[in-house]
Amino acid sequence: MTYLDDFEFFGNVNKAHDFLDALKSGNFLFSLVISYTETCEIPGITFAGADKDSIKFTSPADAEYLYYGYCKTIDKIPMTPDGKPTPALLTKTALESCSIPHVVINAGSKIPPQLPFIHTGLVHGKNISVESAMSDSQVSQAVDYGRMVGRSLASLTDCLIIGESIPGGTTTALAVLLGLGFKAKVSSSIPNNPVELKNQIVNLALGRLTSDNPYHVIAEVGDPMIAFVAGMLSSASEITKVMLAGGTQMAAVLAFASKIGFNEQNTAIGTTSYISNDNSANFTSLVSEIADIPIISVNPGLENSNFLGLKAFSQGFAKEGVGAGGSIIASMIKTGNNSTHFLMLSEKEYHRLFTSL
Amino acid sequence: MTYLDDFEFFGNVNKAHDFLDALKSGNFLFSLVISYTETCEIPGITFAGADKDSIKFTSPADAEYLYYGYCKTIDKIPMTPDGKPTPALLTKTALESCSIPHVVINAGSKIPPQLPFIHTGLVHGKNISVESAMSDSQVSQAVDYGRMVGRSLASLTDCLIIGESIPGGTTTALAVLLGLGFKAKVSSSIPNNPVELKNQIVNLALGRLTSDNPYHVIAEVGDPMIAFVAGMLSSASEITKVMLAGGTQMAAVLAFASKIGFNEQNTAIGTTSYISNDNSANFTSLVSEIADIPIISVNPGLENSNFLGLKAFSQGFAKEGVGAGGSIIASMIKTGNNSTHFLMLSEKEYHRLFTSL
Repeated sequence: MTYLDDFEFFGNVNKAHDFLDALKSGNFLFSLVISYTETCEIPGITFAGADKDSIKFTSPADAEYLYYGYCKTIDKIPMTPDGKPTPALLTKTALESCSIPHVVINAGSKIPPQLPFIHTGLVHGKNISVESAMSDSQVSQAVDYGRMVGRSLASLTDCLIIGESIPGGTTTALAVLLGLGFKAKVSSSIPNNPVELKNQIVNLALGRLTSDNPYHVIAEVGDPMIAFVAGMLSSASEITKVMLAGGTQMAAVLAFASKIGFNEQNTAIGTTSYISNDNSANFTSLVSEIADIPIISVNPGLENSNFLGLKAFSQGFAKEGVGAGGSIIASMIKTGNNSTHFLMLSEKEYHRLFTSL
Repeated sequence: MTYLDDFEFFGNVNKAHDFLDALKSGNFLFSLVISYTETCEIPGITFAGADKDSIKFTSPADAEYLYYGYCKTIDKIPMTPDGKPTPALLTKTALESCSIPHVVINAGSKIPPQLPFIHTGLVHGKNISVESAMSDSQVSQAVDYGRMVGRSLASLTDCLIIGESIPGGTTTALAVLLGLGFKAKVSSSIPNNPVELKNQIVNLALGRLTSDNPYHVIAEVGDPMIAFVAGMLSSASEITKVMLAGGTQMAAVLAFASKIGFNEQNTAIGTTSYISNDNSANFTSLVSEIADIPIISVNPGLENSNFLGLKAFSQGFAKEGVGAGGSIIASMIKTGNNSTHFLMLSEKEYHRLFTSL
């Protein structure tokens, strides 16, 4: 079985094959954009953190774990309240298996990570259920800085992979998608997706919209990550291949980017099968509605793991995040390894983490 | 006349040719490390700024000018009190002539630049004439972070060029070189090099040394740039070619790096002929004493300029800085242009700046 058997293609399927072919001889650069929205503080909206007070540490801790193999801001790697690990575990396993370099970009994290990172000066987003996420000028600055960073990073690689870590981000993503006129149903890091609660928040946020101007939509109901990554995509896709690594949050990025302009020919979404096969959402048709780009989905094979913490990803917990899907796709292209091999490496990393803690 | 006629080689000359040959088909990445030492506040020690109060803006303004073509932190590009421009003018001209990408790293600037930059959290250095420059743990952190950033950037390019902007940095460089046991005479951004004043400051600083432990020397008499760039060189030279772009400050980096370890096979210094031919200093013999690496020196041909502000570089003002020499060398390798062409481009940029201001 080759890794291609682990891949599924949606959206513009022809372009998916071209995209993969173009990358076989190239180099990758992984960028992790960390951010924060106060929307995540609404009880029940996210499990991306052991408890309410630790959610703000999740993004910087994800970044530290990718760099060091352990965290500095908190003692253990980010986990759900019942001990399921961050998807950064999958990202780290993938990037290390093929020595893909990575950079961390702080685009509004509440807490800065303890490592060298690209500083933008962006502040975190507000709780969209009660107030505007950002000011108009904050949105413009996020897009401008995203464009600058995207241009720099794109000139250094054949394929820029962009992942994100922003707790509560699927809720702002849902609001942005709906605010921009796309019929979205959105995934969650929680298997019994708290649809009711999300819709409530999103409706409160959408109620403040006075126009469908995309900058206004982001300012009212979005978050800094969406604005920044759309800016990155906009400039980077003019220079090199870009793989947006993620699920519904990257769909929101794509939706905003489709308004400010980007190069479809150089763009793909890379994600996990846990997202593309999620029947409570409509990811693949949503992306197709937004842009004529390929969706590359990988099955990481975690359902075969003996570790419950890994198996959980395949059962609807987290499913994606920290660019896991895109990283796994890139690692398979570079190494030729399939999901059986990836599972073995992930279990090794899981074992290292949970016996050393 | 080819650009090779504009080059002179010192140190390990055989390796200079190998180094150039290796780079002909490769890609460059330019990194600008900005920093600050309170030593620059001693009256008469530097002209890197229009007046005493504006010196702290020089480094971030250099970085902004490279990015935007104008500055945000101050109105005009950094200049000497009598209007001679920053060597960043040469760096920008060189990098733009061949689309070399660049990143800015803040390693202790007093003022952050208004652009996306690599954040390290390092604080600026103290005035070495009155107190320790840094604590021991600050030195360790600067080296560690330098190693991390060096590793990341090196994996993205065939040749990492490292330039610096730190006003007052030739004085701390002199102190570090002497503190580490090298017989240095150091250049200055001022043609009548204030030797007396520098020696006075350096002697006060060296008087505090209680051992020749290299970390102790940097902590007492150095600056954050030297510690950080030595860390960068240490890790980056294990992965790719590294060109330290600068004069005496890069000699100090090399001196410290020779104590903490780096790969000589992948390292060169690139500078201007205004440094290598400066009879008041002993740059080439000093570098040869420190390490068995090539020195590549370029004559940018500015003595032929009709603009006094450009001609001044050839008359001992600034001479080097912001990685100008290394950038010009890289641009000539990439484009095949010689100094006549470079002068034309520099004059165009000079004209743009001084007619638009």
